[in-house]
Amino acid sequence: MMRIIVVLLCLLASACANKTDMQGRAVSERKTLQPNVVILFADDLGYGDLGSYGHPYIRTPNLDEMAREGQRWTDFYAAAPVCSPSRAALLTGRYPVRTGQFGERIGVYFPKETGGFPAEETTIAELLNAAGYRTGMFGKWHLGDAPHALPTRHGFDEWLGIPYSNDMDWEVGPDIEGMIRLTQEGKTDEIERIFTTRRALYAKPVAGAWQVPLIRSVRHGTSFKDTIVEQPADQSLITQRYTREAIRFIEESGEAPFFVYLPYTMPHTPLFRSPAFEGHSLGGRYGDVIEEIDSSVGQIRAALRRRGELENTLILFTSDNGPWLTMLTEGGRAGLLRMGKGTTFEGGMRVPGIFSWPGRIKPDVVSEIGSTLDIYRTIAAIAGLDGSAGIDGYDLSSTLFERTPSARKALAYYRGGALYAYRSGPWKLHLRTQGAYGQGPELTVHEKPVLHHLHDDPSERFDVSEANEETIRALTTEIAAHQGQMDVKPPAMDARLARIVP
Amino acid sequence: MMRIIVVLLCLLASACANKTDMQGRAVSERKTLQPNVVILFADDLGYGDLGSYGHPYIRTPNLDEMAREGQRWTDFYAAAPVCSPSRAALLTGRYPVRTGQFGERIGVYFPKETGGFPAEETTIAELLNAAGYRTGMFGKWHLGDAPHALPTRHGFDEWLGIPYSNDMDWEVGPDIEGMIRLTQEGKTDEIERIFTTRRALYAKPVAGAWQVPLIRSVRHGTSFKDTIVEQPADQSLITQRYTREAIRFIEESGEAPFFVYLPYTMPHTPLFRSPAFEGHSLGGRYGDVIEEIDSSVGQIRAALRRRGELENTLILFTSDNGPWLTMLTEGGRAGLLRMGKGTTFEGGMRVPGIFSWPGRIKPDVVSEIGSTLDIYRTIAAIAGLDGSAGIDGYDLSSTLFERTPSARKALAYYRGGALYAYRSGPWKLHLRTQGAYGQGPELTVHEKPVLHHLHDDPSERFDVSEANEETIRALTTEIAAHQGQMDVKPPAMDARLARIVP
Repeated sequence: MMRIIVVLLCLLASACANKTDMQGRAVSERKTLQPNVVILFADDLGYGDLGSYGHPYIRTPNLDEMAREGQRWTDFYAAAPVCSPSRAALLTGRYPVRTGQFGERIGVYFPKETGGFPAEETTIAELLNAAGYRTGMFGKWHLGDAPHALPTRHGFDEWLGIPYSNDMDWEVGPDIEGMIRLTQEGKTDEIERIFTTRRALYAKPVAGAWQVPLIRSVRHGTSFKDTIVEQPADQSLITQRYTREAIRFIEESGEAPFFVYLPYTMPHTPLFRSPAFEGHSLGGRYGDVIEEIDSSVGQIRAALRRRGELENTLILFTSDNGPWLTMLTEGGRAGLLRMGKGTTFEGGMRVPGIFSWPGRIKPDVVSEIGSTLDIYRTIAAIAGLDGSAGIDGYDLSSTLFERTPSARKALAYYRGGALYAYRSGPWKLHLRTQGAYGQGPELTVHEKPVLHHLHDDPSERFDVSEANEETIRALTTEIAAHQGQMDVKPPAMDARLARIVP
Repeated sequence: MMRIIVVLLCLLASACANKTDMQGRAVSERKTLQPNVVILFADDLGYGDLGSYGHPYIRTPNLDEMAREGQRWTDFYAAAPVCSPSRAALLTGRYPVRTGQFGERIGVYFPKETGGFPAEETTIAELLNAAGYRTGMFGKWHLGDAPHALPTRHGFDEWLGIPYSNDMDWEVGPDIEGMIRLTQEGKTDEIERIFTTRRALYAKPVAGAWQVPLIRSVRHGTSFKDTIVEQPADQSLITQRYTREAIRFIEESGEAPFFVYLPYTMPHTPLFRSPAFEGHSLGGRYGDVIEEIDSSVGQIRAALRRRGELENTLILFTSDNGPWLTMLTEGGRAGLLRMGKGTTFEGGMRVPGIFSWPGRIKPDVVSEIGSTLDIYRTIAAIAGLDGSAGIDGYDLSSTLFERTPSARKALAYYRGGALYAYRSGPWKLHLRTQGAYGQGPELTVHEKPVLHHLHDDPSERFDVSEANEETIRALTTEIAAHQGQMDVKPPAMDARLARIVP
């Protein structure tokens, strides 16, 4: 017995020694083994809204510098054309249809949801947290506002942010259920009056017109503390606040690597910016908002530099979907791409994608295909973890570090639960086309699919299907293979709506 | 008498001494007093066609470097939406209506013109040449192909290039007069057959399908030697050839400053590039052509650097008008701007404008208004000459050197002889709107003008006239003042057409 105890003690001592040793190595080797990761994620920022992507008036010197020092991807895609599905896919490396994180009726989560991000899915924060990363989120969640759905229940040590979009708690008129009831009751005059007031508020946003809460949530072991810090959140200071919190989190870092997920509330309408950025941009209120985000990016990079962590940190800046064109001058622009948010045309899903890691990433402009779907797997690979759960993603690290062709050769464009289009190399086949929600044109299911060659025709102007039947056959086979392995779950985001419109 | 001769001899000696002294000073001081000037002028290159202006696939590292080291203007305009008027304005600093260099029927010069650039107008080449500059032109003229109209008769010591557009000497079908006759005779089937063959040739250009001549013209004192060097010009080597000639001209430079005007034949259709650039670009044949132009810019800058002249040379790269959208994938793209060549929407006239002069120009992205109309006056000012003949231009030098606001606050948009729109600050008022030639929409003369705010809405999507009546009144007053001082000459470019369609 004594012998067994001695052996156990030895094993334990050895384990402890090993652990100390491991930690010792970790401290010295972490810089290459486990880098920090910072994801900066704008909301409704369009493909054409940064200086380095060609905007004439919005100045983004910090992002442009990051692009010059790192890789600026020209064919980088959000995983969905609207907010909630796009975010679920970024965190999981899985198409929203695979996780059920989509809606057939309304494509995003609304306040007072009973559902939300599912327990059985693993976020990149969970993966990194389990591997010893400190994980902090500062910004908009939008994957359910029920306690069980919040970020701290899905891998984040702490979160400060808003639970859904910044326009979802209107003071003017009822909430989404109320609006649907008014529609059912045929009260078009009242609806019209509400929309008119709301439109005017978008053009000149007033504090308090939206009652969205700012929540702080902290995890201690298996218990959680959620506090509403402010309601309504002061949106004019919200970009600054997220930035300050992220910098505080970075500055509190010790030996453990960290993961920062900063999904800005902006430039989703209503557009708010701090007093210092009022009239900052030639590009109007929208430009002010982007320039404040650019300043935030600069501050975060400066904080990393001060801590000596910039050369040990992978940073990605991207957007959750294309610009909300319905918002007119309060929405962004997709540059030369067709349409915007809500659609599966390029303007709806292709977004800026800028990767930075001085000393590691090979600076270039990259026209390989990449997606936020690839974040899970890429980060896992870089951190030396098993990323296979991100089944719809690809490890892009060799493109980032060695400038090899991208592991991703194709992309599926879903709207809700339906496959609308599929890209393989430069070819994009549209099975269905449709304008944004509330805007034409209506859904067309193409009996004869429409084919675009995106390199020759990035604006999707010319249907070249007639002359490329062989290509269409090859794409059709690829699409069948993609659909054959896709396990579509029921849409979680219709739950609330289903309570009122069965 | 002897006394007078002595005095005269003394005066002469003194004058000679002074001249030697002047020359001595000129040699040492020329570097600041009279810099070299190089104008690189693309044909139908769109606002969105360079890397630094946001094209996803066309790589232009040399132009991007020039933009980083110099000033990239976001609101730089060609003086007209089509070729010949635009070139006349660049050379004179005068609106085409003032010089008669426009057409009401067909807006450009065609082969076998009897008219052409008028003797009474002074080009910037003439001004510089008279002040001691060597002046060389390598590229497309397009201001008349009659001997009296050629570049060497208007200030250039030498010229190698083509006299008009590279698509104007079709092997397939008759010339412009013949085509008009077919139209008058109602031979639509034959016209259709010709256009079908021509379209196919645009997509796959074949040497010899266009018979455009390559002309060398040299001036010796008051006599001229014009030689057809090649007919048809080998268009696949034409960009290289212009580049080589410009470099030769630069390398032959002695003490005198030089002026190089290099109006590329490309990317006007048919699109040709040298074998080294076939498949060079991800952006198709059009991309290949732009990347060859970018390479040409790099070679010219390298030649200037080798000669120690780069820091003594003002270089401007710009385009004669927007992209020819009718040419589908063989045409360029205006990025986020509306429409293209031929129209007075922004896509028709706003073009890339990149100024370089290392050590003198203050590097920046500039959103002041500038125009090719300003070239005459700006160069004159920089060379210490009287530029007042460039009556419609402004001296932009203090914006270039000191980054002051632009002297230009407004711009008139003419199509043919009619004023279509007027910009003042960020406001643009459309009096008339019309699609490109051969494309809709048809001309609308707006009883109530359409107003756009270009900073908030660079794509000209939203008419904000209702809410800005005061602004419209102010613009209307400005327009009246502009028109009040404008002396419109008869259109010189209708001469040939008038012979057949009286």
